[in-house]
Formats: sequence, C-alpha cells, structure tokens
Amino acid sequence: MNKILVTGGAGFIGSKVAANLIEEGYEVHTIDNLSTGQENNLPNGIKFYKGDCSDEKLTNKLLKKNQFDSVLHIAGQSSGEISFEDPEKDLRDNVLSTLNLLKFAKENGCHKFIYASTMSVYGNVKNKIINEFDETKPLSMYAVGKLASENYLRIYHSLGIQTVSLRLFNVYGPGQNMQNLKQGMISIYLSQAINDNRIEVKGSPDRFRDFVYIDDVVDIFNFFNNQYKFDNYENLNVCTGIKTKVSHLLKTINSKIKSEVPISYIDGTPGDQFGIYGDNSKLLHLMKDFSFTTLDKGLDSFIKSLNI
Amino acid sequence: MNKILVTGGAGFIGSKVAANLIEEGYEVHTIDNLSTGQENNLPNGIKFYKGDCSDEKLTNKLLKKNQFDSVLHIAGQSSGEISFEDPEKDLRDNVLSTLNLLKFAKENGCHKFIYASTMSVYGNVKNKIINEFDETKPLSMYAVGKLASENYLRIYHSLGIQTVSLRLFNVYGPGQNMQNLKQGMISIYLSQAINDNRIEVKGSPDRFRDFVYIDDVVDIFNFFNNQYKFDNYENLNVCTGIKTKVSHLLKTINSKIKSEVPISYIDGTPGDQFGIYGDNSKLLHLMKDFSFTTLDKGLDSFIKSLNI
Repeated sequence: MNKILVTGGAGFIGSKVAANLIEEGYEVHTIDNLSTGQENNLPNGIKFYKGDCSDEKLTNKLLKKNQFDSVLHIAGQSSGEISFEDPEKDLRDNVLSTLNLLKFAKENGCHKFIYASTMSVYGNVKNKIINEFDETKPLSMYAVGKLASENYLRIYHSLGIQTVSLRLFNVYGPGQNMQNLKQGMISIYLSQAINDNRIEVKGSPDRFRDFVYIDDVVDIFNFFNNQYKFDNYENLNVCTGIKTKVSHLLKTINSKIKSEVPISYIDGTPGDQFGIYGDNSKLLHLMKDFSFTTLDKGLDSFIKSLNI
Repeated sequence: MNKILVTGGAGFIGSKVAANLIEEGYEVHTIDNLSTGQENNLPNGIKFYKGDCSDEKLTNKLLKKNQFDSVLHIAGQSSGEISFEDPEKDLRDNVLSTLNLLKFAKENGCHKFIYASTMSVYGNVKNKIINEFDETKPLSMYAVGKLASENYLRIYHSLGIQTVSLRLFNVYGPGQNMQNLKQGMISIYLSQAINDNRIEVKGSPDRFRDFVYIDDVVDIFNFFNNQYKFDNYENLNVCTGIKTKVSHLLKTINSKIKSEVPISYIDGTPGDQFGIYGDNSKLLHLMKDFSFTTLDKGLDSFIKSLNI
C-alpha cells in the first residue's frame, strides 16, 4: 500500500484531507502535536505520531521505517493574531517544521511535497483580484513564516523534490474548531451566534474575503497528490474568485440560523487584511472541470453539521 | 554617553561600523558568537558579549542593565553556499536572532533598528538594474532567511520601532576574512592569488556584481544611525549602480598584484546569482552628497592593506 505523510491530521483541514486519502486506499501517517488539533479528529485507520514536525528525532524514526510517496504539510499554527503573542514560537512551529520535513522528504526519496500556504502572504492588497504574481507583503508574523516556507519549497524543487504551495484563502466548513475564537472568520461568527446569541466583529463590515468550502480543499489536495505533475515550482491560489463582504456574510448567516442575532463591531486585530479575494485561473487551468461550492450551499452544510 | 548595540562586532562589517561609532563618541556594545568573526577584530573600547543573538537569556541580561538608542543588527551567517549545508542552523542564526533582537529593541525602548540585509533577496534577476520594488525570489536558504527578517522588521515598524533594511551588495575591503573561501568574491580571489598563485573561479566569467567598498558601508550605517528619520519602513539598496563583470574584476586584480596569476573556471555553487547590480537612487535621494569609492581605488586600498 502506498504511504503518504499528512501533517496536522488532528486539525481541521489535515483530518479531512487524510480521511479522503485513506478512502482512496493510501496508508496515511500523520504527525500532530495536538496544540490546536484534537485527537478525536484523527480519521480511522491513520497512523498517528504525537509530536512536532520540527522534531528531527521523530522524523528520523519515521524515515527509517517507511518510504513515503508524498508529504502533505498541513500542520501549523494558523492564526495571524496568535503569531504576535510569540513570534519565535510561530517561527519554530511554521518554518523550522517545514525545513525539517523538506529535508526528511529529500532523504526519504519522496516524489511530492504539497504545502498548505495562505493568502496571508499577500498582505495588504488593493481593491483588486489577487494573482499569484502579485507582490507579497506579509502583515503578520504568521504570514512572514508562511512566505519563508514557500521560498524554501521553491529552492527544494531545484534540489529535486517536486514541491507546490497551495495558497488557501478562507477555508470553512464542518469540522472547523468552534472553540477557537482566534481563527476562522465563519466559525468564529457561527460560534458566537450559537453560544452568545450575538456576533462581535473585530474590524469593519466592509472588509471582504474569498470563502472556500472544506470539501473543495480536500478535492484539490487530492488532485495535486494523484494527478498533478510538478514540472516547475508553483504557488497557487486556492479560492473561488468571489468577493464576499463581511456584512453580506453576516446577513447570510443571520438568515440561515434559527433566530437572527444582533451584531456589534470593535477594533480590528493587528496584521488583519482589510480585503482579499483571489484569481483562481491558474488553478482551474490545471483542474479543468472543477467547480467550487457556493457560499450558500457551503453555509447550509456547515450549519446543518452543527445540529442547531 | 549614548549606547548602541552593534551585533557581529567581531566580523568584517560589524567591527568597522562599531569602530566608527566608538570614534563618534558612542558607547558601543556587541554580541558575537565568534563563529565566523574573530576576537582580534573587536575594536578598542567595545563592550563584548560572547554568544548568539538568538539567545534570549543573554539579551535579557543586556536589557536589564542598559538603555540603547539603537540596534544595528549586522551579525549572521553570511554565505549562501554554507546555508545549504544546514538550513535549520541558518534559520536560527539569521532569523530567530533577528526576531529576538526586535523583541529586545521593543522592550528596551530603542528608537532605531538598522538591519544588514542583502542583495541576495532578489534571487535570479534579469539583465537589468535592480530596484527595491523588484520581485524577491531568493535562491539560497540564506536569502530566504534574510527576506523573512526584512519582513519582520516591516511589521515591527508598525509596532512602533523605527526599522530599516540595508540591502548590501558585494562588500569588500580591508578587514575582510582572507581565510574564509566561501564568502566574499574579491577576498576569495585575492586570497587564492596570494596563497596559491592562481585563481579558481566557481562559475562563469560573464557573471557580474556591484562591488561596494567597506568605508562607504560604514558611512551609510553612520548616516542611518545619526541622521535618518524613519517615517516608513524601507528596504534600501546599498550599491554603486555599476555593473562589474567577473572577468573585468579578475583582469583588474591581476593588474594590481605583484605578478599576474593564471585563472581557471569550475562549476558554480547552488543558489549563486548569475548577475546583479543595483539602482541606488533611493539611497542617494536620502544621502544627497554621498559618492561611492571606485573599484579601482577600493582595490588599491584593499591590496595595500594586505602587505603583499
């Protein structure tokens, strides 16, 4: 059975991607330190190693016993806000880990290395759709580290590993951590609506985002793992191309939950992007028949999964 | 007496910058781990702490006892070639150190933070003069780390420290380490010519560089420390704007040393830039009367200092 290492298998995105690959027939291994991931997220049948992706002893142990086809590096601290609290920890969790896994992949003879990057690398962008060749000006420690990781991947491509960075926009959907109020715009609002019967928004209602449904992200990782040929290193936007204002999102959420909740606004968080939405034509050029789930359908499924 | 922290005071550039600030009447402190720097480079009167800039215990000790006007962060592993041998060490030496010093500067209430960055952040560039707004595509682990450090400085500017990154091009001159054959194009060639009576060039003679004389770099650090107001975060090219081919450099060296030496060519090193020279108009807009030392004069002084 072909082996794949998916990091962050106890997290929101990692657990879904891993579950899908297990269904596809792969033997999936995962490293997760359970700092934000939860053990009960781990899909059935996964081989789980508790630890840090930056821990060379752990990866060396894995190295000796296994030959992996590919590494899907999804683990990591994923909040821009939290990255300001301890920038050095963020660097270790999000950059040292990537370097260690790249070295691991090279020594293990892995063919592919797929990295979960982020739209945050672009930083503050003008009111225009974002392309992969646009300037990167990260605004948070988190985004600096993600961009550095991308750059390491680009160099490792020239050293013989096939690497690609998927710049995920705002991913949402069932399985998102409803307890973490520092990460995930939709999950934060839904969680507040359910638990507090109100929504407190950090920042302006005019901010906008590009929301991607989790199942689409799973399909995209699957495509890159199974079908894509990595002739050159690429950064790819994973987004719908649709600009959704925070005010529109809130109105939609209020229309879908049982009873409407009041909304208040406070100051934004440092390093937050005002607005961003992305051009996905580079991605869709590769995945010709792919179509994204609409926000309407995605929100329905998400809310349904919460049993409220 | 006003205090300044200059990191890397036992290194080529750090020692010269520190000596100049001591002459200017500052009390200069330095952190250096002596990994590439040499203790006998330390200028008279400097307060020396042996250790890593990433060592929080060390910087906390300094923090309690001193109030610094500014931090000039010059220490660091400075070879692209070496950064491939241990990328994680490079990340610790060059990025974790910057983060630790930025935190230190903020807690210490420093007004200014001046960073010795590098032209390497641009990566492989087309045959055109390089501006600060050109794309950054680092080709070595070293360059990835330097770019990440710049990005951290930009964020810290928004957190209230006045930061600037000086993108140094090929700095050369008296005091350069003649034993280190992995760093410094001119010092490597001169060292080979003196010790081996031959020069072995890694890469093509058609590659080109922009050579900056050490005394100019000292003056530029001095200007930014004493006169510059940091309204916005800036990346600034520190270069002459003159494109010098490796073949021209070798011919000039051969014409200046006692007897001409034979030159041979072997393969280049990974991550080496083919050619780069920079636009310095942003820098000269700030330092209006500044003029750079010519390569001819700079080489004369360098060779004279070697007593050959």
